Amino acid sequence: MPVTLKLKKGGTMHPYVAEFIGTMFLILFGNGVVANVVLPKTNGNNGGWIVIAAGWGIGVFIGAFCASEFSGAHLNPAVTFAMYWADKEFGLLDSGGYIGAQMLGAMAGAVLVYVFYREHFREASDDPDSMLACFSTAPSIRKLPQAFVCEMIGTFALILPIFLMVAPGFSSGPEPVDTDPVLGLGSIGLLPVGLLVFGIGLSLGGTTGYAINPARDLGPRLIHALLPLKGKQGSDWAYAWVPVLGPLTGAALAALVNAFL
Amino acid sequence: MPVTLKLKKGGTMHPYVAEFIGTMFLILFGNGVVANVVLPKTNGNNGGWIVIAAGWGIGVFIGAFCASEFSGAHLNPAVTFAMYWADKEFGLLDSGGYIGAQMLGAMAGAVLVYVFYREHFREASDDPDSMLACFSTAPSIRKLPQAFVCEMIGTFALILPIFLMVAPGFSSGPEPVDTDPVLGLGSIGLLPVGLLVFGIGLSLGGTTGYAINPARDLGPRLIHALLPLKGKQGSDWAYAWVPVLGPLTGAALAALVNAFL
Amino acid sequence: MPVTLKLKKGGTMHPYVAEFIGTMFLILFGNGVVANVVLPKTNGNNGGWIVIAAGWGIGVFIGAFCASEFSGAHLNPAVTFAMYWADKEFGLLDSGGYIGAQMLGAMAGAVLVYVFYREHFREASDDPDSMLACFSTAPSIRKLPQAFVCEMIGTFALILPIFLMVAPGFSSGPEPVDTDPVLGLGSIGLLPVGLLVFGIGLSLGGTTGYAINPARDLGPRLIHALLPLKGKQGSDWAYAWVPVLGPLTGAALAALVNAFL
Amino acid sequence: MPVTLKLKKGGTMHPYVAEFIGTMFLILFGNGVVANVVLPKTNGNNGGWIVIAAGWGIGVFIGAFCASEFSGAHLNPAVTFAMYWADKEFGLLDSGGYIGAQMLGAMAGAVLVYVFYREHFREASDDPDSMLACFSTAPSIRKLPQAFVCEMIGTFALILPIFLMVAPGFSSGPEPVDTDPVLGLGSIGLLPVGLLVFGIGLSLGGTTGYAINPARDLGPRLIHALLPLKGKQGSDWAYAWVPVLGPLTGAALAALVNAFL
Repeated sequence: MPVTLKLKKGGTMHPYVAEFIGTMFLILFGNGVVANVVLPKTNGNNGGWIVIAAGWGIGVFIGAFCASEFSGAHLNPAVTFAMYWADKEFGLLDSGGYIGAQMLGAMAGAVLVYVFYREHFREASDDPDSMLACFSTAPSIRKLPQAFVCEMIGTFALILPIFLMVAPGFSSGPEPVDTDPVLGLGSIGLLPVGLLVFGIGLSLGGTTGYAINPARDLGPRLIHALLPLKGKQGSDWAYAWVPVLGPLTGAALAALVNAFL
Repeated sequence: MPVTLKLKKGGTMHPYVAEFIGTMFLILFGNGVVANVVLPKTNGNNGGWIVIAAGWGIGVFIGAFCASEFSGAHLNPAVTFAMYWADKEFGLLDSGGYIGAQMLGAMAGAVLVYVFYREHFREASDDPDSMLACFSTAPSIRKLPQAFVCEMIGTFALILPIFLMVAPGFSSGPEPVDTDPVLGLGSIGLLPVGLLVFGIGLSLGGTTGYAINPARDLGPRLIHALLPLKGKQGSDWAYAWVPVLGPLTGAALAALVNAFL
Repeated sequence: MPVTLKLKKGGTMHPYVAEFIGTMFLILFGNGVVANVVLPKTNGNNGGWIVIAAGWGIGVFIGAFCASEFSGAHLNPAVTFAMYWADKEFGLLDSGGYIGAQMLGAMAGAVLVYVFYREHFREASDDPDSMLACFSTAPSIRKLPQAFVCEMIGTFALILPIFLMVAPGFSSGPEPVDTDPVLGLGSIGLLPVGLLVFGIGLSLGGTTGYAINPARDLGPRLIHALLPLKGKQGSDWAYAWVPVLGPLTGAALAALVNAFL
Repeated sequence: MPVTLKLKKGGTMHPYVAEFIGTMFLILFGNGVVANVVLPKTNGNNGGWIVIAAGWGIGVFIGAFCASEFSGAHLNPAVTFAMYWADKEFGLLDSGGYIGAQMLGAMAGAVLVYVFYREHFREASDDPDSMLACFSTAPSIRKLPQAFVCEMIGTFALILPIFLMVAPGFSSGPEPVDTDPVLGLGSIGLLPVGLLVFGIGLSLGGTTGYAINPARDLGPRLIHALLPLKGKQGSDWAYAWVPVLGPLTGAALAALVNAFL
């Protein structure tokens, strides 16, 4: 009697499909935890910042281990952008395909969150800000240049540590192993990425709600604009450039510092 | 002087026994944390959603590492159902035995929770909803078709990531290792499953209380019906089909998507 | 330039010393978190059950990795008692030495907690129950036989999963590896034990405050009786037998079930 | 198409640069979480002690994995001081360079926290204590000798467990492996250090706010004195010696006990 899971492995999933699925789960779990905390009559209503930050951290972890062995689990145009600068073999076409898949995955995840919490969105029809918060980020104090700086620093604090993560099997002896940093350990090896995002939420989530990922913010914002949510107001397009350009700038900065190091 | 634990290993436990014990611990910890948070005069009373979600996540982790090397630690008819579809060697008879053992284990766990929190159940005799919540799930907004959709999505978000988890030792080289995804690392290798369930609780627990497991809901509901709890009301059998059929549908969907990928 | 920690390893520490140090840290962190949450004017005052349960879980983890390679990190007479039954090579004399070291370590830890939170104990001189809670456990509903059952079940849920933990390197192939379950992975391999105790706190800590360890309760209770705390009242010796005999009974039960499996 | 991150590894970063970057991230995340919880109008405002303790624990984890393979990730003059005593090859000059880099890194991190939370510092201009708390620690009850004892015990509980951590690959067989305790597992192998600091926060953070690191307190205090914060008051230099000399004394004590063991 076979007692363990049979896994169909071997890189058979196309990287773009992996990016789509990973980003879809990232948004399902990430925006899902926001909905659970801010929408009325949920079990997690008013559950506190620890719930939000933990939910996003685990969302990244889940998305990462779903996509990791097929696409490297970027799940974030800012990561793809940094990879494009850091890795000569990763070209413009690949980057575009990755980013497109991430955008579509984020939109699919946002639709799933709406389908899942539909009844609770109805209960929130008098609170358009909470409804929008289940899709996209917003600054807690509305100063856009400062919000740009926050998104830049937050993304810098995501990308540079990813570059500096320690590969398993590395030793300080004469012949360092140049392996992939996570796959050797299986899914648990991706936990540091999830913990990093958990930490960014705890420490750097206080101002803009830490998009640190253009697809995470823009994809769901598009869905917010398209869905017929009762009582919704505008999708705050005046702010939409901040969580796109801030993360990309932070990623470029991290790639620059990493190249310098 | 021997200083380390001596372990009796080697697959000597029958898979059905392992499923029984693993599911029993899953429910003891899972329903135990609900009792600690919702029953009066407990130390964890009103401890918040983070306590509930963490308790269930760790309950799955503990149940999983107790059963893992003997039965593969399904602990959930929805997982067994997905395995039945995905794995030609895992037959109908095995599936039935697994599911029966899970049901009995869930019932045993529910009895243990009652025995453990007996004095606090007495204090809750004027609050039948809280008493029932220590056994089975209930929707926070009573729309059954929507609750079915939530249980289906929640279970899909459990099963597909389990299929996509990265096996330790896997490399992107020409000969991927097709090992068991967790055993090589010992118990810590099962932590991603616990974190996945922690995440489902945080993000997708807001609507129906995330049964995502027919045995987890139906077994304790039967015990609720049988136990002479002072002040209890009905066991809400009108809802009982949702956390059974929703998870099975979600599992079938995940197996389908996985086969397609 | 040496850049990594030089470790003096190789089993040079006597097992009894290791048990003393490990249990001392267990109580320093465990009773320390209680003091931080229940004593007045602390930073963690009223921090919630998640803080208590996490603090005890990490206390066990820290105590365990300090003692692990020297003594196997029992840190608990109930664990030693179960090992005595399960392992023919671990004799009565060893058991006695282990338990004596655990008691002395628990008392040293309790003294450290008092020294650390001394000013805050002074602020609590009108609240003798809170002061006693920083040393020993108490039942939230005072029914001693039921408290005995709770301590028995809680300890059973500690010891049986420890017996069933998966050893790293184990495979379902023909020749299972019978290695030590944690050391091969270093300290991280002991995390499941810490998570197990975190889970017991979350799920089974609601009734008696989960001593699940005779030394954890009796050692600090002795220190409470000896220290000249301003405003303290009795050390509740009428309850003291419960968190001693309950855990030992639960451990015997777990050893029995494990032998049967 | 390359699907995994390309890592530039091999010890090319100077240890002092690694200490600078690691300590900068430690303070960015550590003081960042304080700012998120105590400053007005943040998303994490009033988020509770679990948020603070988790943020600092993850800050240490992130700082550690960024610096680990280049400098051994001391990130703390108390750790460097203990290494100086414990390791004959690690000389006075190295120690001075490490400590200087840690001080500069802590100051850079404090500047980043100010830049990040600038708008929220403005909102706190009537609350100088909260502003100072985003830089340096303060005792909750102002008795300086007792605060010194707390910082000494807290740092002792940091350094001795670091000395006693279990190296991966260690076995209780005849030839124990004397490897580096963390690098073999990659970043996840450093998680125990983060969990240790999480635990110190939960259990021993109640009295002085657990500096347990002279650079963590003194560097940001200097920045507090230099920055033109609107509404700020003194930087409490009368207390500044406690979180410097307390940790160094605790580190010396831990090195002494470790040598004795």
